[in-house]
Amino acid sequence: MNFSSKLLEDAVAEFAKLPGVGQKTALRLVLHLLNQEKEDVEQFSRTISKLRNEIRFCEVCHNISDQVVCEICASHKRDKSTICVVEDTRDVMAVENTNQYNGVYHVLGGLISPMDGIGPSDLEIDTLVERLNNDEVKEIIFALSATMEGDTTIFYLNKRIKHFNITISTIARGIAFGGELEYVDEITLGRSIATRVPYENSLRK
Amino acid sequence: MNFSSKLLEDAVAEFAKLPGVGQKTALRLVLHLLNQEKEDVEQFSRTISKLRNEIRFCEVCHNISDQVVCEICASHKRDKSTICVVEDTRDVMAVENTNQYNGVYHVLGGLISPMDGIGPSDLEIDTLVERLNNDEVKEIIFALSATMEGDTTIFYLNKRIKHFNITISTIARGIAFGGELEYVDEITLGRSIATRVPYENSLRK
Ligand SMILES: [Zn+2]
Ligand SMILES: [Zn+2]
Repeated sequence: MNFSSKLLEDAVAEFAKLPGVGQKTALRLVLHLLNQEKEDVEQFSRTISKLRNEIRFCEVCHNISDQVVCEICASHKRDKSTICVVEDTRDVMAVENTNQYNGVYHVLGGLISPMDGIGPSDLEIDTLVERLNNDEVKEIIFALSATMEGDTTIFYLNKRIKHFNITISTIARGIAFGGELEYVDEITLGRSIATRVPYENSLRK
Repeated sequence: MNFSSKLLEDAVAEFAKLPGVGQKTALRLVLHLLNQEKEDVEQFSRTISKLRNEIRFCEVCHNISDQVVCEICASHKRDKSTICVVEDTRDVMAVENTNQYNGVYHVLGGLISPMDGIGPSDLEIDTLVERLNNDEVKEIIFALSATMEGDTTIFYLNKRIKHFNITISTIARGIAFGGELEYVDEITLGRSIATRVPYENSLRK
């Protein structure tokens, strides 16, 4: 593209770095911002900068949180003996939306993916094992996407934690292979949690 | 959505204000930014703020420009006697890409749209008439989208400028009714400019 302004070109280049945003979409978004009031664009800019600089992760479950310990981990109403292991904060939101779950979470921050160079040490796996060492956990529920990466991660996690005296289950696969957890409707996801099965039983034969 | 963090919620709300960006997409973009280096996000934020605060518009054609007068208007190689009237900077870029046009531009900054409350006084129309008063212009080419708004704008502009002794033409309608100019392929657009017709001949009967 031939830009008439370096400022414009730079802004389009920044937006085009976002996933799923091409040059044309980036240009459309930038021109939209140019049509907004200065203070509104300033607020947009400031909010993003603030997010990145001030974001914190719960010390217990590693979900995004404004406090040292998130609301779910701090709540006396939640059952601390059940931990639901998820990939990221979107999955916490998805499970919370079902109103079917009263335990706590552990947010891995991704899935094991050798193709993308993501190994176990890049994820919050050691901290999960630590929680099992210290807390009175009776059950671990794997609520990971039904993808190759999700299965690989469950396989690895199971090896790391099967010596603990706890129930290990995965959410029922009402979800088709390849299904991303965050796009599953609430009813299916809620039912999958209610009908969870022991991990050993869930392995494909 | 139930956010685990106010910072996260605010950032998602800002992104969701962008055209065509829903809550789920906004969340995906924000989580992407959270995974980037702090300095990269800072640069994203700074570039946007800088764009909105420092952007300028060419005093002559009103296209986005880093200088008082844009490169096209300042160029001795461009034919100042022909003005191509377009909606916004994307259309300047689209016409430039065809390599079929050597005149200059006039960027209206929008199209007349009573539905959206955009009237002639919101656009760079008086400044176009001024150019015709002062400069030696021989031809005006309307290169506006083939939409109701585009047609309304051409109809109004024609009334305002038909008393000048200049040729008024519109780009040939190889473009289907309803077609947005910016999505037209370069060949069609280039041909439309080459085969432009006098405005009076182009009116639908
Ligand atoms: Zn927590
Ligand atoms: Zn100019």
